[in-house]
Amino acid sequence: MRRYGVADTTFSRVDMGRIAMRTIEREDPEGEIVRYTVPGIKDLPVAAKRLLEEGCDGAITLGWVGRTTLDKYSYLAASVGLIAVQLLTSRHVVDVTVHEDEADDPEELVRIAEDRAEKHARNLVLLVRDGGGALAPFAGKGLRQGYGHAGPLD
Amino acid sequence: MRRYGVADTTFSRVDMGRIAMRTIEREDPEGEIVRYTVPGIKDLPVAAKRLLEEGCDGAITLGWVGRTTLDKYSYLAASVGLIAVQLLTSRHVVDVTVHEDEADDPEELVRIAEDRAEKHARNLVLLVRDGGGALAPFAGKGLRQGYGHAGPLD
Amino acid sequence: MRRYGVADTTFSRVDMGRIAMRTIEREDPEGEIVRYTVPGIKDLPVAAKRLLEEGCDGAITLGWVGRTTLDKYSYLAASVGLIAVQLLTSRHVVDVTVHEDEADDPEELVRIAEDRAEKHARNLVLLVRDGGGALAPFAGKGLRQGYGHAGPLD
Amino acid sequence: MRRYGVADTTFSRVDMGRIAMRTIEREDPEGEIVRYTVPGIKDLPVAAKRLLEEGCDGAITLGWVGRTTLDKYSYLAASVGLIAVQLLTSRHVVDVTVHEDEADDPEELVRIAEDRAEKHARNLVLLVRDGGGALAPFAGKGLRQGYGHAGPLD
Amino acid sequence: MRRYGVADTTFSRVDMGRIAMRTIEREDPEGEIVRYTVPGIKDLPVAAKRLLEEGCDGAITLGWVGRTTLDKYSYLAASVGLIAVQLLTSRHVVDVTVHEDEADDPEELVRIAEDRAEKHARNLVLLVRDGGGALAPFAGKGLRQGYGHAGPLD
Repeated sequence: MRRYGVADTTFSRVDMGRIAMRTIEREDPEGEIVRYTVPGIKDLPVAAKRLLEEGCDGAITLGWVGRTTLDKYSYLAASVGLIAVQLLTSRHVVDVTVHEDEADDPEELVRIAEDRAEKHARNLVLLVRDGGGALAPFAGKGLRQGYGHAGPLD
Repeated sequence: MRRYGVADTTFSRVDMGRIAMRTIEREDPEGEIVRYTVPGIKDLPVAAKRLLEEGCDGAITLGWVGRTTLDKYSYLAASVGLIAVQLLTSRHVVDVTVHEDEADDPEELVRIAEDRAEKHARNLVLLVRDGGGALAPFAGKGLRQGYGHAGPLD
Repeated sequence: MRRYGVADTTFSRVDMGRIAMRTIEREDPEGEIVRYTVPGIKDLPVAAKRLLEEGCDGAITLGWVGRTTLDKYSYLAASVGLIAVQLLTSRHVVDVTVHEDEADDPEELVRIAEDRAEKHARNLVLLVRDGGGALAPFAGKGLRQGYGHAGPLD
Repeated sequence: MRRYGVADTTFSRVDMGRIAMRTIEREDPEGEIVRYTVPGIKDLPVAAKRLLEEGCDGAITLGWVGRTTLDKYSYLAASVGLIAVQLLTSRHVVDVTVHEDEADDPEELVRIAEDRAEKHARNLVLLVRDGGGALAPFAGKGLRQGYGHAGPLD
Repeated sequence: MRRYGVADTTFSRVDMGRIAMRTIEREDPEGEIVRYTVPGIKDLPVAAKRLLEEGCDGAITLGWVGRTTLDKYSYLAASVGLIAVQLLTSRHVVDVTVHEDEADDPEELVRIAEDRAEKHARNLVLLVRDGGGALAPFAGKGLRQGYGHAGPLD
């Protein structure tokens, strides 16, 4: 049986963790899910590491980033940390990040967050359950999360 | 009994360490607190690591950042370092940072610093004492430290 | 027999993985190739690490980066991660990145992507099969991937 | 007996290493000092690591940074490296950096460099000899190195 | 007998590796030199690590960086990686980088590259053969590589 980690934040303005959990349940009904909620994105790397140490085969992190340059620096530090967690464990931590300046309209932000969380939760299941070949049919297809697919150019 | 580390700086213009200690004492009266004061934010990662090595179950760092681009680069380097400490120890180091350009009014800066230090000290107690499920009821609720809560969009 | 890893993304709008594989097959017909496809560039470091752990002697990663500052921060985090993978394994991971703002014309972007993927796949074979002396005759020659060679100035 | 490392550069336009050594001698007359001079700031992390490996209980690094964006990127990389040295050794490396654009007047730059080197050398002695509680009376006091103290806001 | 590593790129428009090798031969005629050529600066960290693993006592890397922001991000990632190599091995990797926007005139760029490669190759020999005290007489002297010395301010 596979075990999935879901790490999210209280800073986020959309409950993306719930969407990720619902998607994982639907895509892999036999999978087990462990949730870990932290204050903000800079707390996500250690949350993901702890989830993997507790036996999760992979994890999804769901972060929300404000509009200022400082928020972006925090995003950069968190991203470096999330990649480090993956290199330390050789397991996938798929990162969902929504930036508050991606849209002015709150409803549009909610839509982006939900679409991105759902699509990446599906990606996580494919990677964890089916391995690195599962996404090969979509390589170079210009897939997007949060928006409609851009599609291939060639 | 839980042990909490509090790392702060002489650079800071508000004694946030004192506020964090007072909050931890109130939230977890049986907890023990160890304080470690360093010159500036780039010294915080090793201070946090030493606190955790001395047996602290988690730590809070309280940094103050100036207005220039260079101050922001120092913030970025310190943030990467604080995340590294957490990955090396698998324990939480909740970071409170106040940026001097968050407000022009000194009184407003003091208010931001106090609110942020207090709320994050409470977060630390919840994470250390009650684990990664303690904050789950607040996931996606748009909580803020230093400001009023932004609230959920969905 | 040499084994080569090819890690690419579903975000990319050109199937650069296919081009890299075709080039490696042509340059080193006895080599074996393992492909690993992930959602985006921040997933490439762990994919490369897993390929090397599965016995690949070297790997090529093929990433596609959007136009925003945030995309560039993701590029920076992924680059730091890809270098870390190489330092952890002492093996080469040659990185091919195409930035969507390198050209406005889609055909030109495709051309850049194909040229860069092909030339760097050849570089990977030279480094893995023939070692660090194989490229010495071209040192300082101003070689470019994705564009025509700039040539030497001296 | 305590041993202090002093790492400085030939790039610097002020002999801050000399000032740091003089200050350490005055503040801890029984301490031993080892000096290590490198070309520029990117060489400081390994110099600090070697000093700590040779038995220094802590170190001070004295760097000088030019005016361009690239110089700032080098500062960022060096800062990340200096924090990494501290995390690898659990010992303090107090960093003194002077940026050439902090002042247009050369005399003012010299004054900044001397003040910063002297104050941080004193900080190093306090941290190494007396530990993380030695600076606690000054926590939140708005101390500055290179400039007059900003003072507390609360 | 000392062994020196020289890592350079095919991206560079000046054959700085040759200049570095010639300088090392002149400064330390008994030294042995191993050259390793890679495509670009992001490949230099693993090249340097491999050179050190093959027994080199220190290395010099010679990189060439384009004009765009992305090139600068690659420079930042490579710099972090080169510092990491030094911390992993406790040996010096002196980095020579020429940025294409340092001069508009190609002849001036060649002159910068040659001067910088030669001076830093000499620095490497001093550090490897004579240790961290060899450069102490020049500490704070405002030495420059690629340009004339700035000189001391004090």
